[in-house]
Amino acid sequence: MENKLQELKARLAEINDLNSAAALLGWDQMTKMPPGGAVARGRQLATLGRLAHEKLVDPAIGRLLDDLRPYEQSLPYDTDQASLIRVARREYEKAVQVPPEFVARLSIHQTESYEVWTKARPANDFSAVIPMLEKTLSLSRELADFFPGYDHIADPLIDFSDYGMKAASVRAVFDQLRAQLVPLVRAITVQPVADDACLRRSFPLERQEAFFTNIIQAFGYDFGRGRCDISPHPFTTGFSIGDIRITVRFQEDNLSEALFSALHEAGHAMYEQGVDPAYEGTVLAGGTSAGVHESQSRLWENIVGRSRGFWQFYYPELQKTFPEQLGSVPLDTFYRAVNKVQRSLIRTDADEVTYNLHVMLRFGLELDLLEGKLAVRDLPEAWRARFEADLGIVPPDDRDGVLQDVHWYDGIIGGAFQGYTLGNILSAQFYQAALQAHPAISDEIAQGKFDTLHSWLVDNIYKHGSKYTAPELIERVTGGPLSVSPYIDYLRVKYAGLYAL
Amino acid sequence: MENKLQELKARLAEINDLNSAAALLGWDQMTKMPPGGAVARGRQLATLGRLAHEKLVDPAIGRLLDDLRPYEQSLPYDTDQASLIRVARREYEKAVQVPPEFVARLSIHQTESYEVWTKARPANDFSAVIPMLEKTLSLSRELADFFPGYDHIADPLIDFSDYGMKAASVRAVFDQLRAQLVPLVRAITVQPVADDACLRRSFPLERQEAFFTNIIQAFGYDFGRGRCDISPHPFTTGFSIGDIRITVRFQEDNLSEALFSALHEAGHAMYEQGVDPAYEGTVLAGGTSAGVHESQSRLWENIVGRSRGFWQFYYPELQKTFPEQLGSVPLDTFYRAVNKVQRSLIRTDADEVTYNLHVMLRFGLELDLLEGKLAVRDLPEAWRARFEADLGIVPPDDRDGVLQDVHWYDGIIGGAFQGYTLGNILSAQFYQAALQAHPAISDEIAQGKFDTLHSWLVDNIYKHGSKYTAPELIERVTGGPLSVSPYIDYLRVKYAGLYAL
Repeated sequence: MENKLQELKARLAEINDLNSAAALLGWDQMTKMPPGGAVARGRQLATLGRLAHEKLVDPAIGRLLDDLRPYEQSLPYDTDQASLIRVARREYEKAVQVPPEFVARLSIHQTESYEVWTKARPANDFSAVIPMLEKTLSLSRELADFFPGYDHIADPLIDFSDYGMKAASVRAVFDQLRAQLVPLVRAITVQPVADDACLRRSFPLERQEAFFTNIIQAFGYDFGRGRCDISPHPFTTGFSIGDIRITVRFQEDNLSEALFSALHEAGHAMYEQGVDPAYEGTVLAGGTSAGVHESQSRLWENIVGRSRGFWQFYYPELQKTFPEQLGSVPLDTFYRAVNKVQRSLIRTDADEVTYNLHVMLRFGLELDLLEGKLAVRDLPEAWRARFEADLGIVPPDDRDGVLQDVHWYDGIIGGAFQGYTLGNILSAQFYQAALQAHPAISDEIAQGKFDTLHSWLVDNIYKHGSKYTAPELIERVTGGPLSVSPYIDYLRVKYAGLYAL
Repeated sequence: MENKLQELKARLAEINDLNSAAALLGWDQMTKMPPGGAVARGRQLATLGRLAHEKLVDPAIGRLLDDLRPYEQSLPYDTDQASLIRVARREYEKAVQVPPEFVARLSIHQTESYEVWTKARPANDFSAVIPMLEKTLSLSRELADFFPGYDHIADPLIDFSDYGMKAASVRAVFDQLRAQLVPLVRAITVQPVADDACLRRSFPLERQEAFFTNIIQAFGYDFGRGRCDISPHPFTTGFSIGDIRITVRFQEDNLSEALFSALHEAGHAMYEQGVDPAYEGTVLAGGTSAGVHESQSRLWENIVGRSRGFWQFYYPELQKTFPEQLGSVPLDTFYRAVNKVQRSLIRTDADEVTYNLHVMLRFGLELDLLEGKLAVRDLPEAWRARFEADLGIVPPDDRDGVLQDVHWYDGIIGGAFQGYTLGNILSAQFYQAALQAHPAISDEIAQGKFDTLHSWLVDNIYKHGSKYTAPELIERVTGGPLSVSPYIDYLRVKYAGLYAL
């Protein structure tokens, strides 16, 4: 059995090496590659992806997994060996379920659809994408049907990013959240909008970088096992537990842009840097789900990085960094500016309070489309109606409405969005558990100290990698299932200090 | 036949993609990777190398090459199709000739030998490397014997880097060169050493970079298909014809270091950027031999970049870039400084005139070792004797003698060095041919214009990639075989302007 486990590990390590190489090619493409490299890079990425897939669906892996089943069952569930075999089986079964012919067909359609979308969005031309989206919807249904036995047709699609979550349970949680969030947004947005002019001055890039580098190092991001570069869209990627990199986008006249994306991406990156080094090169390295991953970026960006305590400590340093720009701006003005709430059209620009309404709207529309309740041609109208109901404003066009996100146009319909809001909910639920274990954490944050929080996260979440599913991890860490209460409480308390509620 | 050729191309493109990915992992390792990434990176490179090798020795490639032989023979020798099949067959036959068991054994020994060398060199302890080198020598012989039918045991080893060159012909050429170079060095080095203090002032790095970036762009290096980064040792690497990158090493107090390595690496890079785009992803992309590659780095670095005409144009600009450091230094002093000749111990620091004596010494010792004329334990003594005969000085220790280069300690004995001097010889031979075609080139250089030279090199050398072997290319370009005369003439004329000869 030891030999078979070794062989499985060797095969998985080879797949991991191909995927890590592809990740580096992707990182380079977004950060360093000259324009002339683009065509060959696309071909190289396709080759690596194909080879990794071929090696994963090799029947030899299936036989090893079968042979190892009695061994797995003889071990406690949460041993590393049992977990490795279990998670590898999950990945293998997902991969072999989908015929290569379908993968190729979907990929060709996605490329075509993306091309159409890149022209349709600036032209505000939803009619151009209708045939594309109709085919995407039909392919998404076809994909789901390779995984028979689901309760809801979205379940297999949600499983790809948030394994163990289901449409019904996510919908129930989102309904609760929405019921409390819509009145909260209304109560805030009838009041005057916070003034964030202080963030819109000229902030030289080198000093921006020095300032946030200092913060994320204090958080616990290890530059000996990572680095920060510039890219058109911020992201986190990794090639091993010892090499997890982040990127940011700078704007000279917008202090929030690079600063908060650095805190956000550092949260993602600390999760992956914190995985048990023994999981290197195995399927247990990396985060367990999109939602849990997003909980870490949001915890560090928002719960820590937009808190009053945090800025009590860091604002004087920021003023020293930018004396001309912020020397005469009081802490309170700055704190209000970085927590400005405003009804807006674009998800990625939305504040902490309204953001989830954008996400839940998309999740609801995905379910309606998959269930056949909503036709693609009626999508813009449904978008506007829901937008008005939730946010009290109507998008003036489709460009900044249903055409704004790339997800449906280069991906599938179903499972693309829920992780963002699951992450926000979980950020508060995990943070509450951390505070219960160590009540001094919030005082420590106000002293620029993050060790207790970071260590607690490593011990309770990061080090496990993807050993536990998200529902298992939530139960282990918080003693109960996913719950919106800590998040709603967090928002209520925080925003009661900023607005009359 | 078209189908078989397409299948061969598809298989070669896949191998090319794996090798390109490995090259990017290597580039990243030397330029961007945080220390924490090192262990996994080694494993990832080993995996990609193994997969590329497995795919190259696949018997299906052998069958395709057999099936394509009549088609190849029906085509003119220098058509792209015939060349592709011919060069692919050469690569395939080289790869299948060496048993995987031997490759693994050699690789393990090389790693061990390298480890011993990294400690032995600083400790000046040649005795520690004797058992390593003895095994390297025996493995090098074993490797050569996988290619029976050679005239000299070094021939198959020379073939790896300079295909088509032979020990006998290289030795004959080197004997001629040495006979003329030793007296030239003697005549120069009895005279006072040039003063290069003007290169040793403090030169801020940003301005160094701006200055050489401007020059290599003027040469014809395309930053839209490349970039320049910093690494511990300068190198050129590429991931496609559209993405050929260079690196340099900066020293604040040594103007030569980054400047001339940039010109050198840009020469290598322009060769690879200039390959016919139709060869992308095939075995025809990339340079044809180590010697021809080095001819291009040396042509741009030395023949162009250390010429008086070049500095007549660029020195005023350099003075404007560094007014405090060079404003009062006359052109003549600067020109003498960048062409300073001095007998020295270290090959990589040697000037244009003495450099080849360092290389030929190593080549001669390789042949003696392989022929069994020289025992490994007698190598330091042989080194010192030849060094004194050629350069008139004796290395005071082995650290800066026989232990100085990594080549024998992490590679094989045979074929490692000749390319450097073949490159110097060819740089002058090719440049002479360019001047014959376009006598205005030297005047253009003195006006900061390089288009005629660059275009001639693209048309006559670069665009062919590895379609022609080095001997074929030399014959095509110069109308004759490799010849030392142009190089000796170049050195005599140039150094007669600097020294009393």
